[in-house]
Amino acid sequence: MTTPNNTYDVIVIGAGISGLSAAKLLKESGLNPLVLEARDRVGGRTFTVRNREAKYVDLGGAYVGPTQNRILRLAKEYGIDTYKVNEEENLLHHYQGKSHGFKGAFPTMWNPLAIMDFNNLFKKMDEMGLEIPREAPWRAPHAEEWDKMSMETLFKKLCWTRTARRFATLFVNANVTSEPHEVSALWFLWYIKQCGGIMRIFSTTNGGQERKFVGGSGQISESMARELGDQVLLQSPVCGIDQSGVLVAVETLDHRTYMGNYVIVATPPALNLKMHFNPALPPLRNQLINRVPMGSVIKCMVYYKENFWRKMGFCGTMIIEDEESPIGLTLDDTKPDGSVPAIMGLKKICELYAKVLGTEEALHPIHYEEKNWCEEQYSGGCYTAYYPPGILTQFGRVLREPVDRLFFAGTETATEWSGYMEGAVQSGERAAREVSKQTDIPTTNHKTFAERHMPSVGGFLKLLGFTAFLSVATAAVLMAHKKGLCPRR
Amino acid sequence: MTTPNNTYDVIVIGAGISGLSAAKLLKESGLNPLVLEARDRVGGRTFTVRNREAKYVDLGGAYVGPTQNRILRLAKEYGIDTYKVNEEENLLHHYQGKSHGFKGAFPTMWNPLAIMDFNNLFKKMDEMGLEIPREAPWRAPHAEEWDKMSMETLFKKLCWTRTARRFATLFVNANVTSEPHEVSALWFLWYIKQCGGIMRIFSTTNGGQERKFVGGSGQISESMARELGDQVLLQSPVCGIDQSGVLVAVETLDHRTYMGNYVIVATPPALNLKMHFNPALPPLRNQLINRVPMGSVIKCMVYYKENFWRKMGFCGTMIIEDEESPIGLTLDDTKPDGSVPAIMGLKKICELYAKVLGTEEALHPIHYEEKNWCEEQYSGGCYTAYYPPGILTQFGRVLREPVDRLFFAGTETATEWSGYMEGAVQSGERAAREVSKQTDIPTTNHKTFAERHMPSVGGFLKLLGFTAFLSVATAAVLMAHKKGLCPRR
Repeated sequence: MTTPNNTYDVIVIGAGISGLSAAKLLKESGLNPLVLEARDRVGGRTFTVRNREAKYVDLGGAYVGPTQNRILRLAKEYGIDTYKVNEEENLLHHYQGKSHGFKGAFPTMWNPLAIMDFNNLFKKMDEMGLEIPREAPWRAPHAEEWDKMSMETLFKKLCWTRTARRFATLFVNANVTSEPHEVSALWFLWYIKQCGGIMRIFSTTNGGQERKFVGGSGQISESMARELGDQVLLQSPVCGIDQSGVLVAVETLDHRTYMGNYVIVATPPALNLKMHFNPALPPLRNQLINRVPMGSVIKCMVYYKENFWRKMGFCGTMIIEDEESPIGLTLDDTKPDGSVPAIMGLKKICELYAKVLGTEEALHPIHYEEKNWCEEQYSGGCYTAYYPPGILTQFGRVLREPVDRLFFAGTETATEWSGYMEGAVQSGERAAREVSKQTDIPTTNHKTFAERHMPSVGGFLKLLGFTAFLSVATAAVLMAHKKGLCPRR
Repeated sequence: MTTPNNTYDVIVIGAGISGLSAAKLLKESGLNPLVLEARDRVGGRTFTVRNREAKYVDLGGAYVGPTQNRILRLAKEYGIDTYKVNEEENLLHHYQGKSHGFKGAFPTMWNPLAIMDFNNLFKKMDEMGLEIPREAPWRAPHAEEWDKMSMETLFKKLCWTRTARRFATLFVNANVTSEPHEVSALWFLWYIKQCGGIMRIFSTTNGGQERKFVGGSGQISESMARELGDQVLLQSPVCGIDQSGVLVAVETLDHRTYMGNYVIVATPPALNLKMHFNPALPPLRNQLINRVPMGSVIKCMVYYKENFWRKMGFCGTMIIEDEESPIGLTLDDTKPDGSVPAIMGLKKICELYAKVLGTEEALHPIHYEEKNWCEEQYSGGCYTAYYPPGILTQFGRVLREPVDRLFFAGTETATEWSGYMEGAVQSGERAAREVSKQTDIPTTNHKTFAERHMPSVGGFLKLLGFTAFLSVATAAVLMAHKKGLCPRR
């Protein structure tokens, strides 16, 4: 598909889910895209590792849930099934050195004042979300006021009890891998809102963590890349974008130049900085990309010989409130067929599991997998970019704004499930449509049809008859928030 | 001085004052450095423009004051003189639509409660600064607590009156070109402290804005570059640093590769992102460089036919407290010989001057110069990087930490007058010494002698007999904080 002189209709930078879905849609519309990927693999912030011990394991983005219709449509297209994350037995809440079993999305509180406080906080946050436009949070009636505040300040205003405030901190840590004092209240409230609210984002059953992909989420990018064939080039970090000529010239670190009529930059906003632009980016974008860092997270999997927690009546979900603990939230990660009873080696984590679960068995894992996303040059961190106070209202409006022939994709630019695989697809397809509009070639709009007729995940799976898969899941997925786990000195 | 195969002892990235002082010191020590500069000029965030109307004008870093001995030593070496910024007549404080003349560093307050509040705030901030180590602010006894707070939160805690809080906002705007809700209290308190405290940083007479260089600050970098000759290469943006071989390979966008035993990166921390590293930077540094954006500022000069403000008894300093105003602080910028009575064109600014000065003359400038630092790809903003809440304590400690054979300079890494030209020299020379230590070649340590015997700026100038210069200064330097002046949509 390479045209003479390395010239393409569209050059897409980044072969994560966003860039690949953009290229896929462009190709389906009859255009000739080329995808340039810095790494030696596709998938971006999704990363499925295969080996003997783990079979397969998602060390990056993994979870899908209801209302994420675009990513599920893609998975369906490639015959990739989902399975339900195990939540059959009790969840565990570890607090003040003790573990308490519970059912539902949120731990049971003993103190009635805390319950009220807690309910009120979450109700209030959802209410505030109601007045924030998904597409333009900076236009919310209280945008300036809320953007000046950190979530910590908002929690201080809204919470009466330390219990609620402490749990709220964990809620921020788990959802955006950063601290309440680091993030803008406006941005965080927007983030929760565009994921469908507090219950949707935090829940396993009927929420963002309801399912995983059988065989790993990496298969989605791999399938799209296979379809695009030699239109995806790996190990091609882009270092220069020159818009001064008739065509846009995109240069990679290995001195190759690719010419395109248009470019879609499908990286996290901050990674725009890896490229030298001619002419320079406009002032507001130049400032924006310096102000939206990525969260910090190490994802680690611990593999055990046996599913001992299920035998003890626990599903594997642990909500851990302990200042000393590097881990705030765990989920079961066993394979859908019940195989690979597994756990990891980072000693501190094992001790923590032993403490929370109250058994020595947690001290004897047989395998360990981890991925420190903080060290990734071509992600900058995970899951997603966060906005410190003051940035969204000042610079947010240029996030998706084209710069001459550059268009911007990436899950950060999505308006629904931004930060998730779903947002990656939404933003990639949106950017592809923006470019198609320029070329006067109508984009194959299978999206509208598919999205309109797509049932919820549950409905979809029932349809396909995959419920048999869902009963045997057991293992541990641990999202280790940076606190303590990013190597410190 | 080019050695065979493009091999050098040290490759310095960035020909601002920091990189050039590093290279200068290395060369004086008998080493063979090469400086690679992205732009087509040296000077970095200093930028002296010459033209018929303005003669010369500093559109970037310009001011020097007492205790800034390193930059003054450099200037002296090249025969560059300083002159005193005019502060003979009254300063103006514009507040609630009215202008009041005053003398001294801070405006007179009419409300005795505000005076008390104001004094208390600044006293308290200096006291807090006392417990923050210059070299390691993250080791301050209250580091964590203060780092979690924004300056806005601290002002709310410390101020009883709105008058004090409002002025405090202007104080943050003027000193670090960002907003109180954007910056960490720990970082801002450290910043003030390492500049010598509230009075030193904010004052013209006996403070950071006491003097300017006759002929412009750009001459300092130009002189160093002249001395280094073909060891400075312009238009050479670095896009890759490869430390995997025996020598470090530094690659520029025009496909040239330069080999060095060591590399000094003398750019703002965030501009490390412009380079692709092999191996990738360590996780903490990778995260740091994504978290310390540059401030936002447009510096604009307005040139008038006559020095009308001096005739009216005003020196040209205006402290403007007005929510609507894009400008918070002005200073006189007339040439030392009284020539170039000049002012600028941005209409809104002219109207503002007319309002503050109370005369129509301010509406009729004859020339205008401005520099929007927000649009600079190879600065990212100005004056300096700021730390949002939570970043300094988590990531600050790796700021100056070498990564294998990479060493880090740039004013952000300084421990005295960081953010200023003085800090650029300190950090550049420190990095040069670090590298020299590795090579076992002792660095020419003229610094210790010179710094020890250097009189204060005043003493220095009296010595040289330049006081005659100081009486006729008049013009307007306007530091337009981003509020309103960065083009918005």
